[in-house]
Amino acid sequence: MKQFVTFGELMLSLGTTGNHRLVQSETFTAHYVGAEANVAVSLAHFGVEAYEVSKVPSHEIGQACINALRRYGVRTEYILRGGDRLGLLYKETGASQRPTKVIYDRTHSAIRQIAPGEIDWDAIFAGKDWFHISGSSVALGPEVVAVIAPALAAAKRAGLTVSCDCNYRRKLWSMEQAGKVLSRLLENIDVFICGRDDPHTIFGIPRDGLDGLAGRHRDQRAAELMLERFRLDSLAMTVREGISASVNGLSALLCRHGKTYFSPRYEMQMVDRVGSGDAFAAGLIFGLMSEFEPQRAVDFATAAACLKHSIPGDCNLSSREEVEQLVAGGESGRVQR
Amino acid sequence: MKQFVTFGELMLSLGTTGNHRLVQSETFTAHYVGAEANVAVSLAHFGVEAYEVSKVPSHEIGQACINALRRYGVRTEYILRGGDRLGLLYKETGASQRPTKVIYDRTHSAIRQIAPGEIDWDAIFAGKDWFHISGSSVALGPEVVAVIAPALAAAKRAGLTVSCDCNYRRKLWSMEQAGKVLSRLLENIDVFICGRDDPHTIFGIPRDGLDGLAGRHRDQRAAELMLERFRLDSLAMTVREGISASVNGLSALLCRHGKTYFSPRYEMQMVDRVGSGDAFAAGLIFGLMSEFEPQRAVDFATAAACLKHSIPGDCNLSSREEVEQLVAGGESGRVQR
Amino acid sequence: MKQFVTFGELMLSLGTTGNHRLVQSETFTAHYVGAEANVAVSLAHFGVEAYEVSKVPSHEIGQACINALRRYGVRTEYILRGGDRLGLLYKETGASQRPTKVIYDRTHSAIRQIAPGEIDWDAIFAGKDWFHISGSSVALGPEVVAVIAPALAAAKRAGLTVSCDCNYRRKLWSMEQAGKVLSRLLENIDVFICGRDDPHTIFGIPRDGLDGLAGRHRDQRAAELMLERFRLDSLAMTVREGISASVNGLSALLCRHGKTYFSPRYEMQMVDRVGSGDAFAAGLIFGLMSEFEPQRAVDFATAAACLKHSIPGDCNLSSREEVEQLVAGGESGRVQR
Amino acid sequence: MKQFVTFGELMLSLGTTGNHRLVQSETFTAHYVGAEANVAVSLAHFGVEAYEVSKVPSHEIGQACINALRRYGVRTEYILRGGDRLGLLYKETGASQRPTKVIYDRTHSAIRQIAPGEIDWDAIFAGKDWFHISGSSVALGPEVVAVIAPALAAAKRAGLTVSCDCNYRRKLWSMEQAGKVLSRLLENIDVFICGRDDPHTIFGIPRDGLDGLAGRHRDQRAAELMLERFRLDSLAMTVREGISASVNGLSALLCRHGKTYFSPRYEMQMVDRVGSGDAFAAGLIFGLMSEFEPQRAVDFATAAACLKHSIPGDCNLSSREEVEQLVAGGESGRVQR
Amino acid sequence: MKQFVTFGELMLSLGTTGNHRLVQSETFTAHYVGAEANVAVSLAHFGVEAYEVSKVPSHEIGQACINALRRYGVRTEYILRGGDRLGLLYKETGASQRPTKVIYDRTHSAIRQIAPGEIDWDAIFAGKDWFHISGSSVALGPEVVAVIAPALAAAKRAGLTVSCDCNYRRKLWSMEQAGKVLSRLLENIDVFICGRDDPHTIFGIPRDGLDGLAGRHRDQRAAELMLERFRLDSLAMTVREGISASVNGLSALLCRHGKTYFSPRYEMQMVDRVGSGDAFAAGLIFGLMSEFEPQRAVDFATAAACLKHSIPGDCNLSSREEVEQLVAGGESGRVQR
Amino acid sequence: MKQFVTFGELMLSLGTTGNHRLVQSETFTAHYVGAEANVAVSLAHFGVEAYEVSKVPSHEIGQACINALRRYGVRTEYILRGGDRLGLLYKETGASQRPTKVIYDRTHSAIRQIAPGEIDWDAIFAGKDWFHISGSSVALGPEVVAVIAPALAAAKRAGLTVSCDCNYRRKLWSMEQAGKVLSRLLENIDVFICGRDDPHTIFGIPRDGLDGLAGRHRDQRAAELMLERFRLDSLAMTVREGISASVNGLSALLCRHGKTYFSPRYEMQMVDRVGSGDAFAAGLIFGLMSEFEPQRAVDFATAAACLKHSIPGDCNLSSREEVEQLVAGGESGRVQR
Repeated sequence: MKQFVTFGELMLSLGTTGNHRLVQSETFTAHYVGAEANVAVSLAHFGVEAYEVSKVPSHEIGQACINALRRYGVRTEYILRGGDRLGLLYKETGASQRPTKVIYDRTHSAIRQIAPGEIDWDAIFAGKDWFHISGSSVALGPEVVAVIAPALAAAKRAGLTVSCDCNYRRKLWSMEQAGKVLSRLLENIDVFICGRDDPHTIFGIPRDGLDGLAGRHRDQRAAELMLERFRLDSLAMTVREGISASVNGLSALLCRHGKTYFSPRYEMQMVDRVGSGDAFAAGLIFGLMSEFEPQRAVDFATAAACLKHSIPGDCNLSSREEVEQLVAGGESGRVQR
Repeated sequence: MKQFVTFGELMLSLGTTGNHRLVQSETFTAHYVGAEANVAVSLAHFGVEAYEVSKVPSHEIGQACINALRRYGVRTEYILRGGDRLGLLYKETGASQRPTKVIYDRTHSAIRQIAPGEIDWDAIFAGKDWFHISGSSVALGPEVVAVIAPALAAAKRAGLTVSCDCNYRRKLWSMEQAGKVLSRLLENIDVFICGRDDPHTIFGIPRDGLDGLAGRHRDQRAAELMLERFRLDSLAMTVREGISASVNGLSALLCRHGKTYFSPRYEMQMVDRVGSGDAFAAGLIFGLMSEFEPQRAVDFATAAACLKHSIPGDCNLSSREEVEQLVAGGESGRVQR
Repeated sequence: MKQFVTFGELMLSLGTTGNHRLVQSETFTAHYVGAEANVAVSLAHFGVEAYEVSKVPSHEIGQACINALRRYGVRTEYILRGGDRLGLLYKETGASQRPTKVIYDRTHSAIRQIAPGEIDWDAIFAGKDWFHISGSSVALGPEVVAVIAPALAAAKRAGLTVSCDCNYRRKLWSMEQAGKVLSRLLENIDVFICGRDDPHTIFGIPRDGLDGLAGRHRDQRAAELMLERFRLDSLAMTVREGISASVNGLSALLCRHGKTYFSPRYEMQMVDRVGSGDAFAAGLIFGLMSEFEPQRAVDFATAAACLKHSIPGDCNLSSREEVEQLVAGGESGRVQR
Repeated sequence: MKQFVTFGELMLSLGTTGNHRLVQSETFTAHYVGAEANVAVSLAHFGVEAYEVSKVPSHEIGQACINALRRYGVRTEYILRGGDRLGLLYKETGASQRPTKVIYDRTHSAIRQIAPGEIDWDAIFAGKDWFHISGSSVALGPEVVAVIAPALAAAKRAGLTVSCDCNYRRKLWSMEQAGKVLSRLLENIDVFICGRDDPHTIFGIPRDGLDGLAGRHRDQRAAELMLERFRLDSLAMTVREGISASVNGLSALLCRHGKTYFSPRYEMQMVDRVGSGDAFAAGLIFGLMSEFEPQRAVDFATAAACLKHSIPGDCNLSSREEVEQLVAGGESGRVQR
Repeated sequence: MKQFVTFGELMLSLGTTGNHRLVQSETFTAHYVGAEANVAVSLAHFGVEAYEVSKVPSHEIGQACINALRRYGVRTEYILRGGDRLGLLYKETGASQRPTKVIYDRTHSAIRQIAPGEIDWDAIFAGKDWFHISGSSVALGPEVVAVIAPALAAAKRAGLTVSCDCNYRRKLWSMEQAGKVLSRLLENIDVFICGRDDPHTIFGIPRDGLDGLAGRHRDQRAAELMLERFRLDSLAMTVREGISASVNGLSALLCRHGKTYFSPRYEMQMVDRVGSGDAFAAGLIFGLMSEFEPQRAVDFATAAACLKHSIPGDCNLSSREEVEQLVAGGESGRVQR
Repeated sequence: MKQFVTFGELMLSLGTTGNHRLVQSETFTAHYVGAEANVAVSLAHFGVEAYEVSKVPSHEIGQACINALRRYGVRTEYILRGGDRLGLLYKETGASQRPTKVIYDRTHSAIRQIAPGEIDWDAIFAGKDWFHISGSSVALGPEVVAVIAPALAAAKRAGLTVSCDCNYRRKLWSMEQAGKVLSRLLENIDVFICGRDDPHTIFGIPRDGLDGLAGRHRDQRAAELMLERFRLDSLAMTVREGISASVNGLSALLCRHGKTYFSPRYEMQMVDRVGSGDAFAAGLIFGLMSEFEPQRAVDFATAAACLKHSIPGDCNLSSREEVEQLVAGGESGRVQR
């Protein structure tokens, strides 16, 4: 059984129900989420032993957060208890021409209150295979970077593969800041995941030479340039077409050891889009961990991301078999009975 | 801040949940609505001071109706209390090939029990800018027309711009009756809103000369003929394509001072269609009130109507910024975070 | 008023809400269903006197099952009380690329505990017009076949028309078993309904000679071969296109007395797909019972099945008028008010 | 199987959930109720064949009302379809010191639109045993009295036992009116049910001679005087102690053929009080119909009423066995497993 | 119409439903509350013009908070928009022996970010009658005290009556801190409300001389000593008996101008206890504002507090008539119909 | 950390909401429960490492069952996957005079399909401290006894303390059967828990000599006789007073090493009574495991059972601190804020 570790903020996600707007809502659904925890949950569903490292308050809401991870099979023994508050977010699921909106309320949350040395990374990483982080936790600022940077170094020391999902959030930091901080961390990262625009807008990869190329060749070229610049082992790029808040297109490419592999494209009628990037990351990590051929890995990751769109909440509660069934062509239009 | 006044029936709308049919439903959602009040709510969200004039019973359900308007920023001090009952309607939201159905239970409602002179229109209109009515309240019969007719006259006297939305409802009156009564009221109306067929079926504009024309030119010609016949300042026409109960197309034109302006066309995955006409009216009134160029006004109105389809309940709870974002191309397929 | 009788298992269907997966669900909706009972409910809505024959436990859950049928107009006086348990199923409604899943928990249920002679078929069939069964109850095994076989014989003796819906369920039996058992029962059946693949996969109709034919001609040929082989009066075939768990295409053909009639094709945005086959069967039975022309019968049946997709639960709660409105072109995109 | 008939208004009861006030409520539970229909439902649960006679609109809400009765076993074939609207009521369930409130919206409802001769009472009463009415339907005014008066006469002609529950509602008529109209109808009534104060406040039975008597002897004396004055066969009186909206005491007496029988007293933690009087009536009618000894009849009726307080909705969904278990001492504090 | 102003924190209260514990809850009810806002809502229901002064973020959740106040009739034009976050609390409603629990998440909330001079108290108080604050907002620390202290001074200058509810919360500050800060503010306060223990535990009123006295005389004596020490106009004291989380007793006394008045005692079956102190404050303020006799004022206040226990959410949505009906003896055990 | 193991059936408990009867319910809440698992959950909340041993089907409902245990901290690695079905029960929560009802549907469930040797008890018990079983699983018949008997022997061999809760269920077996089977198993049991009547009705302890004694002395004497006869280490007896379905009294005694200790008595307003016996067992086991003085152990156990009545679902989600707070007198009537 492969051993996976991730670190990041855990939050309470308060969602409206039935397409209601936030100002209409008299009830909120409560999901306990985190870009990294979502990856851990998905990997646990694929049969990986997945550990979350984080910090949540010692009160009942902190406990509820831990319970949610335990319920879905994530190991929680490395989660610290303490700090003032659990970060939270309000989520309004859009529809048709109305976009989904997220309001963050993450200031002064417990994860920013981790003391230096409070986490013993060397102990944690002993016997583990993979470490994963997300740019949306890096974005929380210096207190969190001060935890992540030594973690990356320790992970490399311990021989883990290290992955990072870019997850740029404009409500948390500017593209410039993101570029500066992430570029530094990329030194210790093997596998990087980003969206189609991120190489250009965040890392300053020039679009110039790419103008004459068709869409996917431009994506491929940008991926290759990223791989080179940051001496990555692999770079995966998701290409999302935001047709509307109800329908999206999705495809991806994986550039690995210099070769590029393209996934098929899916068009999804969306139930809940949030977390689909994390589902992609989990699918990719699972594929690479399991030493799938690169083509199979990117196909698996994209099918995993596709399935997430049909599931409420941030987590891809799909089994390996279900993802592989979709890769194999699926029978989504039939009733399984 | 612009001052807007409207008059019409307030009702309790009892809706089924989760696509259930009325005969399946053991619970109803309760919305307090009215074609005119929906316009007022939308205008309040655009920053207009919007006043509702109506009559509701003095019991708790009447109060709940007032509370619903207050909640969304509408001024309720001109709403009379009294009368036997609040009109109501049962609403079954359709899906796919099953149409949405409305059962009215509006007989003997409070609005029909307004005594002559019970409303002091001159006092109300002092300092106001715009007065709006809807054909669906006119349809309630002579008691209501007896309130509306003097209101229109008073509004013109006081120098307000007067608008009317045709809102033909076949369950309330025949096309003939509608044509007769509305034609008389149109004398005092500056801005009229109707659907593509209304000029012909209700007001007897002949289709004959239009046969050779392409769809939108026929619409334009019918609009021009209406403008002329009723000496209107502006006529707006919405063109709805009823693809199914789940998907509709929508576009509009505005014929103003002799020139015609066409909006873009939207295709909506519908959450709740009811009230989208009222959202259009509010968008148009806001545009004209704010002295937008006619093209911008019809674009704003159509985008407003489009957004309403994604919001449960009858009211367009969108801000001016949200509508303008859609006019500018939107980012409906992205998560705003 | 036509008199309809059906026999089959009644079950509790426990469904998740709001597209949740089974492992997420803390609440289940409870529907009392059965392939045959669904047909009876739909026929009751078309104005037929429809009787269910079955067996349910004598406790409150058995009673709730009977109440559900009574509520929708089905006659329940022939339902036996007793047995250990009510069969049940767990239903997870899919979306987009995620298929709908059904988990059966039907072992040792009351219907398997009907003693020989416990049902007096001759008494039941006196004065009745039509008897209907479904392959999914036949699949329950020898105890149930031991009830159905004499029922079919009795129905023929009493001069009823007898119909059977193939309803193959791979979680209940193999195609081979199905072919063997159903072929024997088909001797006493006049009207048979199946899916496009069933003639080949279950009844061994060879695909060979059909290769050169376009899709619908192949379907027609397979239908003709079935009609012949089993000396059927009519064979109806539904052709479902499983585009996704959210969108399906549907059409059908009716081969009757040697001639074949094709329905139009519908594309449905699906609310709940389960039971649409039963809705088709009810529509077809109603059409044939009412001596509609074959073309009108298959059109009515297909429109009925189409409407079912928009209704939560397994039953088509549509009236004859609503179905005919859709046959006539419908106004699904308009609000009926 | 005993045959029971009742006539009265059917209504939609819109209730708040979770102790919310009407002005807080964004959802209403929908129950289809009626003082007389509630009696019919309870009798159906005791094994009586119970028929409702009424009139409801021909739309879906009227159908939902019929479905609700069918679900709980009431025969609905005598319910007329037509009229403008279904009467309704808004119900706010109180708690502790806050009383339960009902707002009626019953004007112009279908039951007031029954044409003379539209109901063939002689046909209905053929072969029936018992006819029951309620003062709360009588209170609806002359149109309804014009149906009830001939019904009572026809019932007597046909040899049915006739019962009436006083059910005085101050929001419908004054005590004076009630006294005048009900006194006239009592000529044709055998069994009358009322509350402790009704003999005095409605029928003018003087309290004078009763002053020296203890509570239950005063009740007994008032009952005897009523029995005499109206030459009743039986008079039952319920004594309710309104301790709070959460806790009530209840006992009853039955004065039959000159002798008086007292029930035990129950103290109930109330879930839903509305309909407990109807549950009492059903229990009493069942007891008398079944020729229980008077003591047993009043005990059964009071236990039935007691159980109703624990059941949401207006109907006593208790079986005969459950009521008898409570009469026998019950095991309400134990889990039945 | 009397003019009332209050200042304090507005929060989102996330509650569990159906007696669930926080760790069980997958949904939260959302109420927008505040000790002071609750008073304003109750006063608006009594017919007072009530203004809230506060600061909430400019996003949708801030708007939802304002909407909630508008819905129940509170004037919101003095509420500032801005700041990082809306304070919130998690509420678990207890039952029987399990106490109700509140977890605060109020750090760094918008109300702490009011700049000096951002509120123009003199302008706000012009033409107003009464100003009210609560100790639970004072407890938020120096930033908030820096707003409240000048407000109190301005209110006195403008001739308003000033009241303060002690509302001691041990999760916010120590008794010592509370005593120190509140004592200083009491200089500008006319009417003070506290619980039975507060004089001793917070303000250091010695219990010594009181030992020989019966309970209510000790309370009276403590109240008199408070009145004297702080030169108050009136001191009201609520005496709560925490029998269990389901049942409480409540009574109060009012010491005014040297004389003491005792209310009757109520025993409540509790639906939601939170906010009952605010309901008491509103009742008392209304009584004193309306120049009720002191006895009537304390009776009204206590009855108001009593009714609040039966209403979900923090606000007493009772009318003046409903409170007076309870003062007069009530009819809580009867159905009002 | 103490190590606890239990074995028993896991079931899906389908409950009605809001006091509805089973026949009214259109939705069921889903809890995954088991008399023994409930004990494990409670012990996990007290800080014990608690392992469940059982068998559940390999489908999603089996997984949901495991997830529910994981969520609340129970170790699930010894739970076998396989078998036909998960046993289930329907639960109708009573109120006032209406008792709570449970309908079992546990036939042919997975736990009956454990092959001999499928569980390696010696491996499981290595390093563990305590093993617990319940009579309600023993009642399932010979297949389950064939698992339990060797488990008890293995536990004794491995030096664990062994406890058994009598949990007699009349819907599963007769008192005679229970007596015969349990008596045999008691040989290997150290701590036995039963109700007041069980010694007499199940184990044949004569009531004769006890007649002259007061209630609690009779209980004490019966406990002593049980202790002797079965050479138990400890016998705990709960005394429940079933005042109504809404209010119960509860106390207990512990007879340990020949001395008897009585707990205080609690009177509970009940939210959900089911599982309170399991909460008692967990409290007792925790007390004895932690080497509490016997008096403290029985006090802790009784307070734990008391708290469970206030929590929906079968599990006592209370912490050790919360139980001890109640033992110490509690502050149930206060809001903790």
